[in-house]
Amino acid sequence: MRIALDAMGSDRAPTIEVEGAIGALRTLGGTFRLVLVGDRERIEAELAQHPDAPLDRIDIVHAPQRIEMGESPAQAIRRKPDSSIVVGLSLQKQGEVDAFISAGSTGAVMAGSLVILRPLPGVDRPAIATVIPTRTGHTLLIDAGANVDTRPSNLVQFAHLGAIYARDLMGLENPRVGLLNIGEEPEKGDERALEAYRLLQASPALNFVGNIEGRDIIEEKCDVLVCDGFAGNVLLKFYESVAAFIVGLVRSEAENAKTGIDLTRISQFLDYTEYGGAPLLGVNGVSIICHGGSPPRAIVAAIRVAVQAVESHMVKHIQNRLARLSEAQSES
Amino acid sequence: MRIALDAMGSDRAPTIEVEGAIGALRTLGGTFRLVLVGDRERIEAELAQHPDAPLDRIDIVHAPQRIEMGESPAQAIRRKPDSSIVVGLSLQKQGEVDAFISAGSTGAVMAGSLVILRPLPGVDRPAIATVIPTRTGHTLLIDAGANVDTRPSNLVQFAHLGAIYARDLMGLENPRVGLLNIGEEPEKGDERALEAYRLLQASPALNFVGNIEGRDIIEEKCDVLVCDGFAGNVLLKFYESVAAFIVGLVRSEAENAKTGIDLTRISQFLDYTEYGGAPLLGVNGVSIICHGGSPPRAIVAAIRVAVQAVESHMVKHIQNRLARLSEAQSES
Repeated sequence: MRIALDAMGSDRAPTIEVEGAIGALRTLGGTFRLVLVGDRERIEAELAQHPDAPLDRIDIVHAPQRIEMGESPAQAIRRKPDSSIVVGLSLQKQGEVDAFISAGSTGAVMAGSLVILRPLPGVDRPAIATVIPTRTGHTLLIDAGANVDTRPSNLVQFAHLGAIYARDLMGLENPRVGLLNIGEEPEKGDERALEAYRLLQASPALNFVGNIEGRDIIEEKCDVLVCDGFAGNVLLKFYESVAAFIVGLVRSEAENAKTGIDLTRISQFLDYTEYGGAPLLGVNGVSIICHGGSPPRAIVAAIRVAVQAVESHMVKHIQNRLARLSEAQSES
Repeated sequence: MRIALDAMGSDRAPTIEVEGAIGALRTLGGTFRLVLVGDRERIEAELAQHPDAPLDRIDIVHAPQRIEMGESPAQAIRRKPDSSIVVGLSLQKQGEVDAFISAGSTGAVMAGSLVILRPLPGVDRPAIATVIPTRTGHTLLIDAGANVDTRPSNLVQFAHLGAIYARDLMGLENPRVGLLNIGEEPEKGDERALEAYRLLQASPALNFVGNIEGRDIIEEKCDVLVCDGFAGNVLLKFYESVAAFIVGLVRSEAENAKTGIDLTRISQFLDYTEYGGAPLLGVNGVSIICHGGSPPRAIVAAIRVAVQAVESHMVKHIQNRLARLSEAQSES
C-alpha cells in the first residue's frame, strides 16, 4: 500500500509533514509506503534533519507549485497542475498510490478530489466527515462543511456514506444514524429536516434513530450525525473554540486559586439562567420565556430584564425603528 | 409598573416562581408590582411559606388551567382560555400589566404572544433573543429557535430587533451586528446567508461587522449575532450541554488527581487532531483533509485513517451501497 502525503500543505510545511510521516512509519503497524509530494529539495533537506528516518519506505514525488489559502479553489486546481494537491490526487487517479492526505486549503483538496478522483456513481455531493468527542466516545459528524443548500436526498446519501465509514473505520457493525434537528419529535424542524426525517425513516439499510438536538450531541445518542454543511461547519468550529475557552477558564481559575479550584464560579459564568430569560422580540409587548428547569434566581433575572425592557420603552423603540424600515423599503 | 409572572410555568411551579418573585421584590430596586398568574389557592399556600413576603407589592390573578409541555401550542392557546399563559398575556393586552414572564412551554408562550399581543407593524416574524457568555462578556443570539425556513429579509429584521435590545437593555449605544456564517468572506455561505449579508451591508441604521464563524462566537466579535432559528437553536442547546460536559470532565479529573489537575489530558481529549483528519466521503478514492495548523501527531492520525480506509476497502463498500441505493430509487 502506498499513501501520498502533501508535504507542502500545513502552516509549517514541510517540517510537520515530514515529522508526521516518520512518526507514522515508526508507530503504525503494517508495511505501507509513504509518498511525499512537494518541493523535492525542501523535503530532502527536512528528511536530512532526521538521520534515523526509514528512507526505504519513503518516496518523493516532486511538485514545485503550492496552492495558497486565499486562492479560489476551482481556479487554483486548473491553473496549478504542478501543485502538490493536483499531483498527489493525480497519483491516486493513476493507481500509483491508494490514498491522499493534505493539510492544505480545504477548498482546494475538495475541488481537486471532485475534479480528479470524481464522485462515485450515486453520490450527488461528496461530504466531509469528522469525528467529534462525546461524553462516552465519539460521533461522526457529516457533513462538516463541504456542502450548503443541500437537499433532503443529499442528507440521506450522507447518512449512507457516514454509516459505511463508521463500520469500516470505527468498527461499528450497525451504526446508529441520527438527524441533527431542533426537537426530538418527527414533526420538528425546517423543511429540509422534515423531509430528510421521512426519507431516513424509510431507508431499511440504515439504523435510523431519529432526531438529535443540540444538547444531545454530547450524549452520543447516535454514531453518525447527519446535517447540512452550514450547521455542521458552525457546530464544529464552535465546539473547537468553546472547548479551548472553557479549559482556559479552568486554567486561570486554577492559577488564581490558593486552595483548589472553585468550579462553581465557572459553572455560574456559563449558566444562562444568570442572564435572565429569553425575550420574544417583535411582538407588541414584553414577553419573556424562561427554562422550565429555572431556579429562583433565573426568575429574578427575568423580572429584572422585564423591568428594564419596560423602563427603557424597548417596544416603542422597536416599533419606531421597524416603521422607518418599512417606509424606506416601500420608498425604494 | 406591573409585571405578570406565570406562577404555573416551571417544572417546580409555583414554588420556584414565588421564591423568584419575592427575591426580585427584595433585591431589585424600583417600585414595580408583581402579578402572579395561576392557581390562586396554590399560590397563596406557597406565599404562606414566606411570612416575610412583601405582600403589598404582590397581586394574584386566578388562572385555573395549565398548558402542559407536550400540548400543541396553537391548540392549547385556543382551548385553554383560562390558562396562566393566556390570562397573563391578556392582562398585558388589556394594559393591566406591562410585561409577562413564563417558564412554561416555549411554544405556547410564543404562540400566545403572537395571537394575543400580535406582531408589531413591520415585523414579519418575531424572534427569540438569548444572551450567551463569551470570552470577554456576552453576545445576543437572535433567533434562538422561534423561526425556521427564514428568508434573508427576516434576518435583517432580527438584526434590528437585536440591535434595539442591545441598546436598551445591554447599554450598547452602537451594537456591532454579525451574521453567523461558515466563513468570514462575503462570498461564503448558503443562499440565505449570501443574500442576508448583502442586505445587512446595505442597512445604514445597522453597525454591521460582517460574517461570524463558529469559532469566533466565543471571541465576541459582535454584540448581536444574527442567524436562522435552526442554527441558533442547535448552537444554543449545544453550548449549554458542552459547557456542563467540560466542567464535569474537569470535576472528575480534580477528584481523581492527587496533586492538582492535569488539564492536558482534558485538552487532549477535546483535541480533534487526535482523531485524524477529515475524509471527503463519496469520491472515487481516499482523500483526507487535515487542519492547516496540524501538529505531527495529527498527520500520524490521518495516515492511520488512510491506511484503515484502504485496508477495509471503504471506497468499494461505499460504491456498492450507493449503487444499490440508486437501483432501489430507479425501481420505485
